[in-house]
Amino acid sequence: MKDLSWNDAAARREFSRLKQMKPFCYGLTNYVAAGLSANVLLAVGAAPAIGTAMDWPSVFGRHAHAVWINAACLMSCGPEEIRTAARAAHEGNVPWVLDPVAIGAGAPEYDAVIRSLLEFKPTAIRGNASELIALAGGQGGGQGVETTMTSDQALPYLQSFAAEMGTIAAVSGPVDYITDGSATIAVRGGDARLTLVTGAGCALGSLIAGMLANAEDRLEAVAAAHAVYAVAAERASGAVGTGSFAVQFLDHLSLLDPTE
Amino acid sequence: MKDLSWNDAAARREFSRLKQMKPFCYGLTNYVAAGLSANVLLAVGAAPAIGTAMDWPSVFGRHAHAVWINAACLMSCGPEEIRTAARAAHEGNVPWVLDPVAIGAGAPEYDAVIRSLLEFKPTAIRGNASELIALAGGQGGGQGVETTMTSDQALPYLQSFAAEMGTIAAVSGPVDYITDGSATIAVRGGDARLTLVTGAGCALGSLIAGMLANAEDRLEAVAAAHAVYAVAAERASGAVGTGSFAVQFLDHLSLLDPTE
Amino acid sequence: MKDLSWNDAAARREFSRLKQMKPFCYGLTNYVAAGLSANVLLAVGAAPAIGTAMDWPSVFGRHAHAVWINAACLMSCGPEEIRTAARAAHEGNVPWVLDPVAIGAGAPEYDAVIRSLLEFKPTAIRGNASELIALAGGQGGGQGVETTMTSDQALPYLQSFAAEMGTIAAVSGPVDYITDGSATIAVRGGDARLTLVTGAGCALGSLIAGMLANAEDRLEAVAAAHAVYAVAAERASGAVGTGSFAVQFLDHLSLLDPTE
Repeated sequence: MKDLSWNDAAARREFSRLKQMKPFCYGLTNYVAAGLSANVLLAVGAAPAIGTAMDWPSVFGRHAHAVWINAACLMSCGPEEIRTAARAAHEGNVPWVLDPVAIGAGAPEYDAVIRSLLEFKPTAIRGNASELIALAGGQGGGQGVETTMTSDQALPYLQSFAAEMGTIAAVSGPVDYITDGSATIAVRGGDARLTLVTGAGCALGSLIAGMLANAEDRLEAVAAAHAVYAVAAERASGAVGTGSFAVQFLDHLSLLDPTE
Repeated sequence: MKDLSWNDAAARREFSRLKQMKPFCYGLTNYVAAGLSANVLLAVGAAPAIGTAMDWPSVFGRHAHAVWINAACLMSCGPEEIRTAARAAHEGNVPWVLDPVAIGAGAPEYDAVIRSLLEFKPTAIRGNASELIALAGGQGGGQGVETTMTSDQALPYLQSFAAEMGTIAAVSGPVDYITDGSATIAVRGGDARLTLVTGAGCALGSLIAGMLANAEDRLEAVAAAHAVYAVAAERASGAVGTGSFAVQFLDHLSLLDPTE
Repeated sequence: MKDLSWNDAAARREFSRLKQMKPFCYGLTNYVAAGLSANVLLAVGAAPAIGTAMDWPSVFGRHAHAVWINAACLMSCGPEEIRTAARAAHEGNVPWVLDPVAIGAGAPEYDAVIRSLLEFKPTAIRGNASELIALAGGQGGGQGVETTMTSDQALPYLQSFAAEMGTIAAVSGPVDYITDGSATIAVRGGDARLTLVTGAGCALGSLIAGMLANAEDRLEAVAAAHAVYAVAAERASGAVGTGSFAVQFLDHLSLLDPTE
């Protein structure tokens, strides 16, 4: 296992590629996290569009440079709209990210919709430890959208699940792990207050999509999204409370320069 | 009638109990207020989940430590999903808060859904003066989500309604009143700019739910939520404009220490 | 063509009229922009309500002082709810603003719903260049919610479309143009970082509605909304990053005094 941080050339390279392309990223996400997810992408120079308005899922799902699907968008659309977007991305060879938020927290009908999306081969899957353990068939024990497990506990599940599914699995925690089943990257650092900003985890899904739009190395691109998040959070760590922290986190994302 | 403020032992006690439990709070709310509602709960150490994704209402409604239902969530779900969550909370003995936002503003079908929820015995009901007067059968005269009445005008309606329904009624205004029909608590202070932050009233509903999750005295717990809001708003009162005020309000909520 | 800025008497007059009335503004908008749209209206003293809860579209559409409809609200409601609100505003002689966000970006079913709203004679139509060119029958070339054209390119389309439709058309860009087909007003200034705050364009639609509620001259009122936006953005231009910029933009909106 190797480490990756903002100081590594691979992180700078993948972030440069994102900033160069200014990718059009289409997202289906929950309305709690939608604003922050869009602002994260705008801060790094990407062009987000969010939501399931009429035929957007089939059109934008196929024509965007990258797509992210946060399963909790089911709070404002039906399963078919999500499946349509995932299918469009898959058939259009558009890289797409699945965030199975709250899977394994006790809602079987909700969980089944998420599992049905695996048919469309997500390029990457991100979540917290409880969610990814549950998705991989373990006892995740999630409480709503919160994890009760650590990323270290999730790692073996991630590695076997990623290998089996042919995807990249990424778990957030005190240490983030990103793996394709054979190689694994650890991203350290960040600031625990990010977990006190609603939608911050969900918005990482949007940034991963942005990074995948023009990636040279997909595993490193997903890890680079985590490293970008970590460095922006660290630079915001002087904030006095959770409100200012969220504002300064966005500020530092928008100031992040891959050539600095 | 007695007063309660952040300086009173009862407010500190109830806030300590919330912080100790870190309750899982499930909310159905409108998408305008959802982000702030989640951030308010995260700022005080609770674990929110929001929305009506598939079977979340029946599952999370029963398994959360507390539930809040803001009727304007009807902008992204149907009446049955709200009723399912309210029924689940009621049958599971989960304390739940009803926010009848905009009742009495002229939309009879919307109002009827709110009234139908009273069957499930909300633990507390919060709103502005127009809303609570309308709910209690008076002429509330609300204009959209804004009140045209004062909390003093609402108080007699609250007291009879709370007694009749066996609930706690709480009205926000220059002075907040919280009553179970026999005892009434007044909470003074705060900052009027809180009314210029969208969703601040709705997000108080989420904090009341958090306070009820582990309350020693439910009437004091609801009043403590108002006192916490008031002191955080006062500490944010140096903010230059409404944007900064919202950020500093969250900051001060997150810094609030019941042992200080 | 004349210019209008915050320094002009007409802008001060129209803003004073808004602040004096404190209009009740009802909006159908997307959940990404809903919070900012409400906060913009609250910052200038208006009273917003947002969303399609049950019979709100027919009731609030007719009884509000002004209405704005952002077509991307289709991500959480159906076409009939939008049409109901537009019809109610039209039949009630309530001024209403159409924001055809993302029209011409490749989704024909979505675009058709927007076109069907023209039957209800919007008082004003606002958007970016790609959107307004597409609405006027040209090749807009929008990419999701982003423009690929300039406001200068859009101006001739605007002028003929406004004349033909009997509406006011307003395009945002480095220079904003507002026209009724015969007279055209240019609004300069602002700050390009406003395009990096999600929903800022959408929220301008809400401010235009607020300005139309009590306008003396509707063309100047729409231009005044753009001038208010521009001056608040300029005053926020010292912000270090996009997060702080959004906060300071709201601050300066809330501090804006037409008598200063």
